[in-house]
Amino acid sequence: MQRYTWKELDETARRRVLERPATATSAERRDAVAKIIARVRADGDAALRSLTEELDGARVTGFRVPDAERKAAAGQLTASQRDVIRTAHDTLTRFHAETGRSELRLETVPGVECRRVVRPLERVGLYVPGGSAPLPSTTLMLGVPASLAGCDQVVLCTPPREDGSVDPAILYAAELCGISEIFTLGGAQAIAAMAFGTESVPGCDKLFGPGNSWVTEAKQQVALDPAGALADMPAGPSEVLVIADASASPVAVAADLLSQAEHGPDSQVILVAMDAAMAQQAMAEVDAQLQRLPRADIAGQALAQSRVFLAADRGEALDISNAYAPEHLIINTVDSEDWLDDVQHAGSVFLGPNTPESLGDYCSGTNHVLPTYGYARALGGLSVAEFQKSFTVQSATPAGLQRLGPVAITLAELEGLEAHANAVRVRLAELDREVANES
Amino acid sequence: MQRYTWKELDETARRRVLERPATATSAERRDAVAKIIARVRADGDAALRSLTEELDGARVTGFRVPDAERKAAAGQLTASQRDVIRTAHDTLTRFHAETGRSELRLETVPGVECRRVVRPLERVGLYVPGGSAPLPSTTLMLGVPASLAGCDQVVLCTPPREDGSVDPAILYAAELCGISEIFTLGGAQAIAAMAFGTESVPGCDKLFGPGNSWVTEAKQQVALDPAGALADMPAGPSEVLVIADASASPVAVAADLLSQAEHGPDSQVILVAMDAAMAQQAMAEVDAQLQRLPRADIAGQALAQSRVFLAADRGEALDISNAYAPEHLIINTVDSEDWLDDVQHAGSVFLGPNTPESLGDYCSGTNHVLPTYGYARALGGLSVAEFQKSFTVQSATPAGLQRLGPVAITLAELEGLEAHANAVRVRLAELDREVANES
Repeated sequence: MQRYTWKELDETARRRVLERPATATSAERRDAVAKIIARVRADGDAALRSLTEELDGARVTGFRVPDAERKAAAGQLTASQRDVIRTAHDTLTRFHAETGRSELRLETVPGVECRRVVRPLERVGLYVPGGSAPLPSTTLMLGVPASLAGCDQVVLCTPPREDGSVDPAILYAAELCGISEIFTLGGAQAIAAMAFGTESVPGCDKLFGPGNSWVTEAKQQVALDPAGALADMPAGPSEVLVIADASASPVAVAADLLSQAEHGPDSQVILVAMDAAMAQQAMAEVDAQLQRLPRADIAGQALAQSRVFLAADRGEALDISNAYAPEHLIINTVDSEDWLDDVQHAGSVFLGPNTPESLGDYCSGTNHVLPTYGYARALGGLSVAEFQKSFTVQSATPAGLQRLGPVAITLAELEGLEAHANAVRVRLAELDREVANES
Repeated sequence: MQRYTWKELDETARRRVLERPATATSAERRDAVAKIIARVRADGDAALRSLTEELDGARVTGFRVPDAERKAAAGQLTASQRDVIRTAHDTLTRFHAETGRSELRLETVPGVECRRVVRPLERVGLYVPGGSAPLPSTTLMLGVPASLAGCDQVVLCTPPREDGSVDPAILYAAELCGISEIFTLGGAQAIAAMAFGTESVPGCDKLFGPGNSWVTEAKQQVALDPAGALADMPAGPSEVLVIADASASPVAVAADLLSQAEHGPDSQVILVAMDAAMAQQAMAEVDAQLQRLPRADIAGQALAQSRVFLAADRGEALDISNAYAPEHLIINTVDSEDWLDDVQHAGSVFLGPNTPESLGDYCSGTNHVLPTYGYARALGGLSVAEFQKSFTVQSATPAGLQRLGPVAITLAELEGLEAHANAVRVRLAELDREVANES
């Protein structure tokens, strides 16, 4: 890990050392993804079958996981595995139940009522990545809010294992969320199938969930097509920024940095230390703990591009963090609660010595699908609200129209839109005639 | 307007007649926009100056509207113009004040507290289109929520008039919203300037507002660049769908259809009639009123591609509307209030005989920046929430970590992420040692 003292850096150097590695998609990758999407749109299930064999090396005939296989999943897990998945489901449900949009109804002037009503998204698609290990946690992070929102149709795609099956932990987590439409499909072809629909995979309005660079590129491409599907958020490599003072345990700080580093070789890990001795000890601990990790190779690569900053005070530490806008922000300081008001940009914040990132990754109750790559400047993580939409409603009484109508007429005239003015004028004239007829 | 009886159409025909005209951007347009963006990124203000002269035919030396010009705007309007802009500002403020995100704080298990905190977006950019008439209404629709959210930096770009100045109605509306950073810049170059920043235009995190196809394409391109800026929503031509029964005034129905048609030749206008005689009369009225409109040429082009459906009952009418997912939905029926529960997809809804779309376009209190082109299936219009973001926070006490920590450990093991488990284990071990030391 490279070390810097923040106050010794000028503006340009500060910007440079907080820059994330470029993740530009090559033109070849973009074309390859576009071809996969075009194949799925043209040939539906037949394209999915051949793509799955080509790209996943798995032969799958029916993509939908049979109900019997879903129901059998619980029996393939230990009681303790079922318990922890259930506990995580419960804490997530408790927090997410409060994260929906709220309705609204008020009179803006007498006789004109405005409302906001909330509806679940009708058709959503969830993507749970495969790779080296199953991700029941991601299944819950997507499935719990989709289920709480009350979406009509929830489709879940996850890549097949070599034998074409799906991990029972994923099936069990999906079962707890009431998801029955599960398809053994991965990569860009899964995204294309959910965005446009095929004979067996229902089309969706919005797609959710992390994925590798093929999935990310495919989500971007289908979101640009009005016939496709919107996406939850742009995705980049996972990140943590740890702020630690002299009170922090170097052992815990090192473990937090490594827990992010083991995600992938492109993971971003940043330590902002308020104390040089603690930083020194934490670095020594990182080296020691790294040796004992099964994913030491991956974590080592991530650490090679990571950074340690020495910050003189709270102001400097928060300047670094707010400038970086980390996906995960751990504030491991003696007065962490007091820092929160000055945190401007972060995906999720972990306060104090007893709150490792892994608690939020799995079971604190917050969502682990979070904005990376600086998008925390403008976006938050998933919640029930992202599985809903709202629309506005207005209704005017005759008196309301008589009050506000003339305002609309004058504004329409100012904007040169006569027909807009007319739509009010003809109604006001009719109201006048009604009054005249009644008297 | 082409006429169809809904129940005589099969599934394929129904889909076809509700299809929107294609709006695909040509590769040439895409390249032209990319070149404009690249020029602005490379040469900043100098590029803006030459692009403004090339594309807007206006010579502008300083882009920022001087404070004196802003302050003088009120004096260039009539008292009645100032009054209506102020009234619209007030109704919008009344409704939008309630549309922000809400904070949240709860214990998910004893000792583990989860929160959601809300922050205004720090740097937002608003785009107010130019064209044939000034748009003080759009200035308010963007400026009111930005101001209520409390965004630190609000930048507004609008194309220069021929003499390089900005319409006083726009300046006055911006003044009411407390916006002082106004730049005479239009088109793709304005979007590029706000997304990446130049010597004079501050860079922004998210861009808002409608625009022509150059602006739309530029917003899309800068949103795909992590160094750029996110966009409020995809944009397409404006639309209205009017549901009217025998109780509706054919004069008012015709006026509503025309108020949408005058927006542009690509506007979409759909009438769903519950009564054939009313439909006949409304069509005759459209022809009659059209003749008297200053923008008859534009409205006539829009009407040529528009459609009338005869619906047998409420179920059919709502099927048509929900399948189309209109930006604006007028329900001009005797029992309109009862219909609302079955409206699934719309940008904004206008209930009853006294609520023309123009009321919402200007001053009912709701926002007129709304999802078009079917995006109402998954998106809502602008509100204060889009000018804010939220992030989650968690904090565990020792007891909280002891309760949930083992759950995180088992889930991490199940997912093969040992370092995730370690981050909990080392803390639990330290807590055990503390207890041992104390006793």
